Amino acid sequence: MERTKFILDEKDMPTSWYNVLPDLPTPLPPVLHPGTGKPIGPEDMAPLFPMDIIMQEFSPQRWIEIPEEVQDVYKIWRPTVLYRARRLEKALDTPAKIFYKYEGSSPAGSHKPNTAVAQAYYNKKAGTKRLATETGAGQWGSSLAFACMLFGLELKVYMVKVSYTQKPYRRMMMETWGAKCIPSPSNDTKAGRDILAKDPQSPGSLGIAISEAIEDAVTSKDTKYAIGSVVNHVLLHQTVIGLEAKKQMEMAGFYPDIIVGCVGGGSNFGGMFLPFIKDKIDKKRPDLRIICAEPASCPSITKGVCAYDFGDTAGMTPLMKMYTLGHTFMPPPVHAGGLRYHGMAPIVSHLYNLNLIEAKAVPQVATFEAGVRFARTEGFISAPETNHAIRVAIDEALKCKESGEAKTILIAHSGHGHFDMAAYEQYLSGQLSDYEYPEARVKEALASLPKVG
Amino acid sequence: MERTKFILDEKDMPTSWYNVLPDLPTPLPPVLHPGTGKPIGPEDMAPLFPMDIIMQEFSPQRWIEIPEEVQDVYKIWRPTVLYRARRLEKALDTPAKIFYKYEGSSPAGSHKPNTAVAQAYYNKKAGTKRLATETGAGQWGSSLAFACMLFGLELKVYMVKVSYTQKPYRRMMMETWGAKCIPSPSNDTKAGRDILAKDPQSPGSLGIAISEAIEDAVTSKDTKYAIGSVVNHVLLHQTVIGLEAKKQMEMAGFYPDIIVGCVGGGSNFGGMFLPFIKDKIDKKRPDLRIICAEPASCPSITKGVCAYDFGDTAGMTPLMKMYTLGHTFMPPPVHAGGLRYHGMAPIVSHLYNLNLIEAKAVPQVATFEAGVRFARTEGFISAPETNHAIRVAIDEALKCKESGEAKTILIAHSGHGHFDMAAYEQYLSGQLSDYEYPEARVKEALASLPKVG
Repeated sequence: MERTKFILDEKDMPTSWYNVLPDLPTPLPPVLHPGTGKPIGPEDMAPLFPMDIIMQEFSPQRWIEIPEEVQDVYKIWRPTVLYRARRLEKALDTPAKIFYKYEGSSPAGSHKPNTAVAQAYYNKKAGTKRLATETGAGQWGSSLAFACMLFGLELKVYMVKVSYTQKPYRRMMMETWGAKCIPSPSNDTKAGRDILAKDPQSPGSLGIAISEAIEDAVTSKDTKYAIGSVVNHVLLHQTVIGLEAKKQMEMAGFYPDIIVGCVGGGSNFGGMFLPFIKDKIDKKRPDLRIICAEPASCPSITKGVCAYDFGDTAGMTPLMKMYTLGHTFMPPPVHAGGLRYHGMAPIVSHLYNLNLIEAKAVPQVATFEAGVRFARTEGFISAPETNHAIRVAIDEALKCKESGEAKTILIAHSGHGHFDMAAYEQYLSGQLSDYEYPEARVKEALASLPKVG
Repeated sequence: MERTKFILDEKDMPTSWYNVLPDLPTPLPPVLHPGTGKPIGPEDMAPLFPMDIIMQEFSPQRWIEIPEEVQDVYKIWRPTVLYRARRLEKALDTPAKIFYKYEGSSPAGSHKPNTAVAQAYYNKKAGTKRLATETGAGQWGSSLAFACMLFGLELKVYMVKVSYTQKPYRRMMMETWGAKCIPSPSNDTKAGRDILAKDPQSPGSLGIAISEAIEDAVTSKDTKYAIGSVVNHVLLHQTVIGLEAKKQMEMAGFYPDIIVGCVGGGSNFGGMFLPFIKDKIDKKRPDLRIICAEPASCPSITKGVCAYDFGDTAGMTPLMKMYTLGHTFMPPPVHAGGLRYHGMAPIVSHLYNLNLIEAKAVPQVATFEAGVRFARTEGFISAPETNHAIRVAIDEALKCKESGEAKTILIAHSGHGHFDMAAYEQYLSGQLSDYEYPEARVKEALASLPKVG
């Protein structure tokens, strides 16, 4: 069998992150203060983030050096492997060449540590003693726990109560790494107490958990807030994925015709495609297709509107111009917890508006069908989120079979599914179903978008 | 930070397994037929295994070529990484240099696929259509499911009922890879029905599951049996671990003073140390210490006797000369399910008798203390089995701190602990306890050893 694995040497790892902001054909719309409706500046974000991170959020520099301390930690699991999916290609009987960049080998099992480590480092450097964050299914919380452990920071994670109860394994990972994790809504914050007063049985939501974490950060000593997706600096840190993949595709002797990834907040896929998109902006690769795969039941890009909206449900964050289903929208309980988010990264939203990227919504059952096919050929059991990307990649490969085109498809593989086996079991036993697109709830949520300008 | 990761190129992967049999100072005692008490020959094993595997079991050849098809599959995750545990060293403030060879990156999460893939390949080649096997906690069953999927073999796994119920995730992995997994004792075999007739609520045991799998293999069409540890050919296939590690230690510029690994049946650690032990046999490295870490509650080597015994509880296998606590011994329910075995690989037992290796029994709580320390420094959350090796390595590193010696310690890291988070939670919440060594039960089990010669 020909080569299936493309491995970068540590010395060829990226030493700078790629910042797309200066390369955008038109600038990103400003982030607005929800009270004044005016663009916010670095000082507005100072209660939440250390200044190094705030400067990255707005940086005009194309390349931002990765601190040596962060590179040292990356080296625990990076560079990650680029695989050629020859067994999947053969099973599909397609002339397409399918590659996947596998982020499941990090100690936390996903791409999330790429930014968690950077955020923990900059906070440590700035004298932060403690971080507060939210998490849904726990991918982000566990990754930040891993990072805080390495840099000696305390961490408190507000975990959506329903996940805290139903998916205890990632909580246990957080605790193993020394973080404190409590179910949200909690009695530890005013935001939590207010919710519990109204509804003592509240199952929680990501929006509520964000409110609690932000309140914790702004009211506690030496404490800052950390976020796992959506905002610019998170996508920036994730570009190690795409920078490595670009070199590895060169090693393999191919340039992708299609890049596909799943999008929740957009950080994993942004991290993959941003280092490639300049080739498209510069018309070097005008035909490069970049496809965002989102859940049909939470389709921010394909069914949402591009508008200023809050990042959280309670409306505590600044306003970002993004594709959104409305910040009060509660997504159906699909297994891909990481994709259950009402909005989309402003950078991803902006590039979609510029017709530089595409989006496709896929129903849940079809994603697991794809994930099982992948597991039964390539061997790796993928996260439910990742299965969205695999679904779209398989569909494109099957189109190649029809047309006879030998396209090169690159998948952003965001992580393993070891903590999601129950979802596979549901699928295999025929008990998994699709959720109808909740049109009425989206309409209602969109009606409550904040008025701006 | 200096280099922490040593990565072999694919082209430097071993192309042959190392067979220690011809290099043993005295030959291994023969395996005996339980009826006749005479040494068994290849033909006696033919109902269970394909001839290629049987020949490996007795082979006088030092090097046995790894088929290209097996190498191709190994390349999905091999060569595995050798890490220098610099963060752990620093936390321990020890002059010792600690390395670990990490087998957790395989799709099944442990070292088990190293032999599962080889066994599936040889069976496929011999025309076998279907395999039957047993599994305890599911590491072996899931690895063989992965391998059978790749070679297009059907697989039925008899999983110890108590694990089937309490640890469903690895069963779901098996099903995701297309295997059938049922709780043992089952109604599908006479052995199972006999047990259920006596005790309908039987929680099962590895011994019962082996009996069921063997019965299935010998009574079903085109079906063979596969085993995940103990016997010679399994240790042979696992030598890819040690062969890679030896080259990687050379890359790192060190030769180990101490090699440590956990032992259940002995295949993971045998696979690691066998390629090194010839240096000790040949007196090139007379001071090399090889330490087997076993559970204090199931201490085959340190408290058992070296005698002919059955490999299974029901007494269906040939008799092997090995360290054993008696084939009817039921080990306490420690979380390290892979170490709950009454016996020990004949090769490991023989080398222990030759004073070429040592053994140390460690209590459960201390192993988790070590595992958490490892997770909080190196990042990886390890399997409970692996934590036994980490415990012994830490103890040796702390001795170096006392003595000031900068010894080089190499750990055989057998896999990740993603499916064992509940055990970590028990430890962290103070609910984990040690089991007293069940002296009376061992005495009883040893009294029922088969009479030979």
